[in-house]
Amino acid sequence: MFRANASLAEQIAQHLGEQIIRGEIIPGERIQELRIASELEVSRGSVREALLLLERQHLIDILPRRGATVCELSEHQVRSLYEIIQILLGLVVRKTIRSIKEEELDPFIELIHHLQEQVTEKDLEGFFTNSFKFFGLFYPYANNPYVEGALTDLEPALRRCYYMAIHLNDTETKECLAFFKATVETIFRRDPRSALEIIREFAEHQSALVSESIQRARQIEAAWGRRRR
Amino acid sequence: MFRANASLAEQIAQHLGEQIIRGEIIPGERIQELRIASELEVSRGSVREALLLLERQHLIDILPRRGATVCELSEHQVRSLYEIIQILLGLVVRKTIRSIKEEELDPFIELIHHLQEQVTEKDLEGFFTNSFKFFGLFYPYANNPYVEGALTDLEPALRRCYYMAIHLNDTETKECLAFFKATVETIFRRDPRSALEIIREFAEHQSALVSESIQRARQIEAAWGRRRR
Repeated sequence: MFRANASLAEQIAQHLGEQIIRGEIIPGERIQELRIASELEVSRGSVREALLLLERQHLIDILPRRGATVCELSEHQVRSLYEIIQILLGLVVRKTIRSIKEEELDPFIELIHHLQEQVTEKDLEGFFTNSFKFFGLFYPYANNPYVEGALTDLEPALRRCYYMAIHLNDTETKECLAFFKATVETIFRRDPRSALEIIREFAEHQSALVSESIQRARQIEAAWGRRRR
Repeated sequence: MFRANASLAEQIAQHLGEQIIRGEIIPGERIQELRIASELEVSRGSVREALLLLERQHLIDILPRRGATVCELSEHQVRSLYEIIQILLGLVVRKTIRSIKEEELDPFIELIHHLQEQVTEKDLEGFFTNSFKFFGLFYPYANNPYVEGALTDLEPALRRCYYMAIHLNDTETKECLAFFKATVETIFRRDPRSALEIIREFAEHQSALVSESIQRARQIEAAWGRRRR
């Protein structure tokens, strides 16, 4: 089941992480070390390491003597997440605008074409996967290992929100595509000020979309009187 | 030796982290799981967890089948570190200026007084410890768990540079104190623009101080022809 290039703990973390991102394991649900170890036929130590990785990625909480549970996703958390992504991505794009050469822009344009096709074909799964290749294109130009590390640690939590966003609303993939295009255009125009404005607007838009849906879900749950926990 | 309130792995990480920050374990030096486990009389699993924590804090590198070594501190890393600290601290201070009440400023003023005394008494150790209480005062007002988490993970690497800085130059504690004072004054004046400017200037100053000293050390080492590794 598991490949050999990532460490075993990383693969277990990715496996569990994907289930959390896609809502297959729900907020508040316990993740039991022993059960996972026997299900995946791996050592308990590897599962323990995987859980530490998921904690670092803000997908689970580990409480002493209480074990691991899937993080709740509150409106405050969603807004906080988009706030930090906004300023880190802003730095990354600003530095790319300063240092990238015209001829190095091809991969950006190719990715936009890909995403465009996936919107047309309503290939949500492909669009989701490809969207997260966008960040990676900027990293060599941003050339800051700490920023790259911080964004990498935040990516799974962002994937969780982004997954919700594109499944909440039929037009959201078009909104995302427009954002990717507009950002690449600011690189062509070497216009960091517009880039920051575009990133701010998109982060605020998607943050509002996701957090309003969480609020609605909570209201419905309350109305039905069947709150978990 | 170890207290009970932090997890054992956290305490081991802090113990090793302090030695790296203070240069007692030097860049490139190997950290051996087994040796540490027997020295501290703890399990190998706890040491393994501590090493993962130190990796997350950018103090050690863990390579598959090669084990853990203390991170090198290159000029590029120093500049990258101050770059990310600058924008995250900028966000934190900006949000504090927006939300703090006049009467909540007392702890900031008290800390400045403390630091002032420690500069006068040339109490470097106390000044070092107290400096890092500064960030913590802002966190409740910044109210963003992801920013707080990112800064907390970056803090040990920053401590390593800051420790070098205040030991490099007799006047550096005065520079730091002037920075802390000026930042608090921008909160009083509710002046986010000046705050960002002050943070930028200080980050660039200290980043240059530390990275020039690293460059000098490397040149001396090269001249003596006794490069490590």
